[in-house]
Amino acid sequence: MDALPATMQRAAYDRRGPVPQDVIRCETLPLPVPGEGQLLVALEAASINPSDVLTLTGQYGMLPPLPAVGGNEGVGRVVALGPGVTAPAVGARVLLPVGCGTWASHHVVPAASAIVLPPVGDPLQLAMVTVNPPTAALLLSEIVPLREGGWVIQNAANSGVGEYVIQLAKARGVRTVNVVRRAEAVAPLEALGGDVVLVDGPDLAARVAAATGKAKIALGLDAVGGMATDRLAQCLAPGGTVVNYGALSGEPCLVVPGQLIFRGVQLKGFWLAQWFRTTTPAQQQALYGELVREIAAGRLHARVHATFPLAQVAEAVACAAQGGRDGKVLLVP
Amino acid sequence: MDALPATMQRAAYDRRGPVPQDVIRCETLPLPVPGEGQLLVALEAASINPSDVLTLTGQYGMLPPLPAVGGNEGVGRVVALGPGVTAPAVGARVLLPVGCGTWASHHVVPAASAIVLPPVGDPLQLAMVTVNPPTAALLLSEIVPLREGGWVIQNAANSGVGEYVIQLAKARGVRTVNVVRRAEAVAPLEALGGDVVLVDGPDLAARVAAATGKAKIALGLDAVGGMATDRLAQCLAPGGTVVNYGALSGEPCLVVPGQLIFRGVQLKGFWLAQWFRTTTPAQQQALYGELVREIAAGRLHARVHATFPLAQVAEAVACAAQGGRDGKVLLVP
Repeated sequence: MDALPATMQRAAYDRRGPVPQDVIRCETLPLPVPGEGQLLVALEAASINPSDVLTLTGQYGMLPPLPAVGGNEGVGRVVALGPGVTAPAVGARVLLPVGCGTWASHHVVPAASAIVLPPVGDPLQLAMVTVNPPTAALLLSEIVPLREGGWVIQNAANSGVGEYVIQLAKARGVRTVNVVRRAEAVAPLEALGGDVVLVDGPDLAARVAAATGKAKIALGLDAVGGMATDRLAQCLAPGGTVVNYGALSGEPCLVVPGQLIFRGVQLKGFWLAQWFRTTTPAQQQALYGELVREIAAGRLHARVHATFPLAQVAEAVACAAQGGRDGKVLLVP
Repeated sequence: MDALPATMQRAAYDRRGPVPQDVIRCETLPLPVPGEGQLLVALEAASINPSDVLTLTGQYGMLPPLPAVGGNEGVGRVVALGPGVTAPAVGARVLLPVGCGTWASHHVVPAASAIVLPPVGDPLQLAMVTVNPPTAALLLSEIVPLREGGWVIQNAANSGVGEYVIQLAKARGVRTVNVVRRAEAVAPLEALGGDVVLVDGPDLAARVAAATGKAKIALGLDAVGGMATDRLAQCLAPGGTVVNYGALSGEPCLVVPGQLIFRGVQLKGFWLAQWFRTTTPAQQQALYGELVREIAAGRLHARVHATFPLAQVAEAVACAAQGGRDGKVLLVP
């Protein structure tokens, strides 16, 4: 065990603003000492999600009071125990509590509620378990009943959530139509197991019908908005549902009234935070337990575009906020 | 009883086109003779609905084969009975079958399925019973449960459906927020019983909150589309539903993703034709029976902007297709 450092670093912000990398900065503080019943956890890795960027710009649905520390998910190792704490042991890997401001080199965490993770497994992959994998899993289970052999269509299919959707759908025997905006994104998703991968465009519905043998698709996952929402709606069977969970285009979701009126298509939203509010800890643990096992075993993963040290948090946020990445951006100590 | 004429008139079209009044024309035919089990019905009045105009332009969800006769609803009087028919009697008022092409001076109708209406009551009002009153009634009953004292918000509140919504909601103890596009439309809707009547605009949600004491509104009725859909969504309580049943703006429905994701608002459509397909004749008769009684008694009515004879069907359609009317347009023989 290395000796503990005298200081810690964290990525904090005092104000929100339109350019997210302009408001976040790395600051150095004395290392905290864990109190009665607490653990000191050293960060292994923390991810930067679109919701983190929208929290910095003030466009997210839930904003912490200022000043705040960025980040919503991450993993670390226990490096010190407070008085009275016997478990988890020093060296154990734990999941950082959701929403705690994970972009910091060290965290004081209540020992009683610590979620211990398998010691094996890639910490970068485990650092991404809290937000995107459950979003993907719940988009597939909570909106409409999908039977084995059935189809789902999604846009932004090469996003973090999109790639988890492909892997989780495949494991459940559900087939995926994956819509991307760039031709270069097609081959990696086919390699990942996407059944059909197409570049978005005005004739999407005709190409989807041709590629799936006119399959009746009951569910569309929309992370783009704008006319991309309507293009998903056009691909659905009558009575299908489009569920929006992101706004990568920055535009409102558009649906032509005929889709709603004559074809009975519905549009709703999904928000993981709302699922947390309306489910029991047992339900949450059941889902996370399954996802952690799959990730630790290497059967569920996301591509990593880059990692940055905490000291370069502004560059990391700028990189995460940009389109055209080839995977997720993570912070490491 | 007047002697029967030798000929009849009907408003027919051979093609669809962007200017609806250019495709419809009045033609004269020999008067048909009712056969075994049939009635001959002389038109009293037939309405021109937005769906009729969209059928002429080819934008509706269900298009009859060409050539076709316009119109979906109307009332008439029995003027002759075919062999073997004893009822309804000559002189009885009957509802024309929905979708039969009602823009014609005479109709041959199976006697067994004729729906006899009260002889009293304004035929213009009864001619409008088939489409708009059940749409209004079902928008209030089929989308979300509305309790007495609860609120509903609608745009295009001075449309035919909109005014029926005000009257039916009032009869059921449900309060209405009514959104219109012109200041001149406010006073008539207040006189009709609208609880709150406001002109649409970007600050609509704040004005609705002020006018209703921040009422939790669970249902929004949208016949406009475009940003008007999102403005209704903004006025709803979390988890509320916007139901679209028309597209007066000609634009797709827009909803900002935050309304769907963070506030759990849903967007769906309503189509009366779909309700007909999924309900029993007994359910349909129960609803129509109630609506006919209310209309015949004068407790449920729509404003009439103008009536035109069948010979002037092109002028009538042009008038109905235009915005800024002060009520419905009907055809009379």
